[in-house]
Amino acid sequence: MPARIGILHPGEMGISIAASALHSGQDVYWCEAGRSQASRQRAIGAGLKSLPDLQELCDTCDVLISVCPPHGASQLASEVLACNYQGIYADLNAIAPDTVKTIAASMANDDISFVDGGIIGMPAIKPGTTWLYLSGTEAEKVAECFSNGPLETSVLGDEIGQASGLKMCFAANSKGTAALHTAILGAAEAMGVRQALEKQWEIYTPGFTEKSQARIKQVARKAWRFSGEMKEIAATLEASGMPPAFFLAAAEIYERQAAFKDAAEEPDIEGVLEMVSRKPE
Amino acid sequence: MPARIGILHPGEMGISIAASALHSGQDVYWCEAGRSQASRQRAIGAGLKSLPDLQELCDTCDVLISVCPPHGASQLASEVLACNYQGIYADLNAIAPDTVKTIAASMANDDISFVDGGIIGMPAIKPGTTWLYLSGTEAEKVAECFSNGPLETSVLGDEIGQASGLKMCFAANSKGTAALHTAILGAAEAMGVRQALEKQWEIYTPGFTEKSQARIKQVARKAWRFSGEMKEIAATLEASGMPPAFFLAAAEIYERQAAFKDAAEEPDIEGVLEMVSRKPE
Repeated sequence: MPARIGILHPGEMGISIAASALHSGQDVYWCEAGRSQASRQRAIGAGLKSLPDLQELCDTCDVLISVCPPHGASQLASEVLACNYQGIYADLNAIAPDTVKTIAASMANDDISFVDGGIIGMPAIKPGTTWLYLSGTEAEKVAECFSNGPLETSVLGDEIGQASGLKMCFAANSKGTAALHTAILGAAEAMGVRQALEKQWEIYTPGFTEKSQARIKQVARKAWRFSGEMKEIAATLEASGMPPAFFLAAAEIYERQAAFKDAAEEPDIEGVLEMVSRKPE
Repeated sequence: MPARIGILHPGEMGISIAASALHSGQDVYWCEAGRSQASRQRAIGAGLKSLPDLQELCDTCDVLISVCPPHGASQLASEVLACNYQGIYADLNAIAPDTVKTIAASMANDDISFVDGGIIGMPAIKPGTTWLYLSGTEAEKVAECFSNGPLETSVLGDEIGQASGLKMCFAANSKGTAALHTAILGAAEAMGVRQALEKQWEIYTPGFTEKSQARIKQVARKAWRFSGEMKEIAATLEASGMPPAFFLAAAEIYERQAAFKDAAEEPDIEGVLEMVSRKPE
């Protein structure tokens, strides 16, 4: 019997998760209410079955998958709870372990089995590029939904928070490093020593400057939704007894780039550095 | 005519700078007053000429080179000023551009030519491993003192602050990244997901975990003097309009490792993570 999986709410990453479930023989649903025409085309184009609203989705599905920006995760969970959903609820969002534990506690009843998840990588198109880490007593059942698609799954253990904790640490390095490099290049530019810095970097690690700048430019248009994730990472470090300020600075670096959200093209490095620069007070 | 160069105060890096000057045919002096027996042996072993105190050093030399922990730079400059020194004073310390400008302003008189400098790399033993960046109107004269040793020199321009600015940005990446990785691994350890994180890092970038941990272990015993440098970097970013909090967190990570200062051996990674971990409040 295929599982009936509902995806809340399918963006680019969500669609790729849905495609992996479809490829594994599951029935995959989404709900149209409140979503854009672009979302509708994307969902139907990927082979998802449409349901009119969240109540129907909750009544139809036995697994719900939440994939949304970090700040929307709690609200989405409470909407599902209000529909008297019965089944597995897997929260795959980039949120701190304490945040996901709070959401799990808010959903704790006899009808809902809560599973923690964290996605590492790009939208899952090719095998070996995207990993779904899961934790919680029903984690294995969520993993089984993706047994045959490009998405790789791994169950970390029984505890809610483990999968989110791993996701936070991975993103802390990848997105934190990009923010750190942006701040350093911005300071070097302001002091008129960027060229000398890049030259010295090249002496130490050939290709470092190009790789670093490519990453900075690549994330610029996604920066608007990274600042929330950086704050979740700060909370993760603080709860783990580590100084969180790295990620408050990273959140600031990404917030300053929010205006790139709808840019038609990737900005060049000078454009990013200009966007993040502020006159010192 | 060889220049008469005084080194204040020759530690491991200072000695290597002195050796490069000796190799370039200069006379190199140091002063014994207040220094340890170990310093004495190191200085004399390297071929430096001893003078009894700072006054004699100032009276003898036409170039003074300051190499000390960041927090000692201002004090050293004021002691030299009090000796009515006449000549070039090159401050090569890891301090913010605004800090070095303040020191330069404090020394501004007709007798002293102030040069800003920043050292990148390990103590200069082999060619191609250590770079001395210089700025200021007399920077070229300092570079000439090292024309034939393993130390590579580069003049960035006429402005005090350029060389220090470059040094700050370079150290921001090298030491900032090591601190960032320490915090991330510490959080992963606290959450019980370090092994999973390291495995995922390996999938993305083979060798990343080993390289990162080697660097963390390598800096542990030097951490006690890195926290001051991290604060100078924070000041540098703030003055350049970038969020400085990355480096306040990095300063904290290094402060927590101060107890490794006199350790006989490099700690293992578990030892470092235990040392930096704090119970969350």
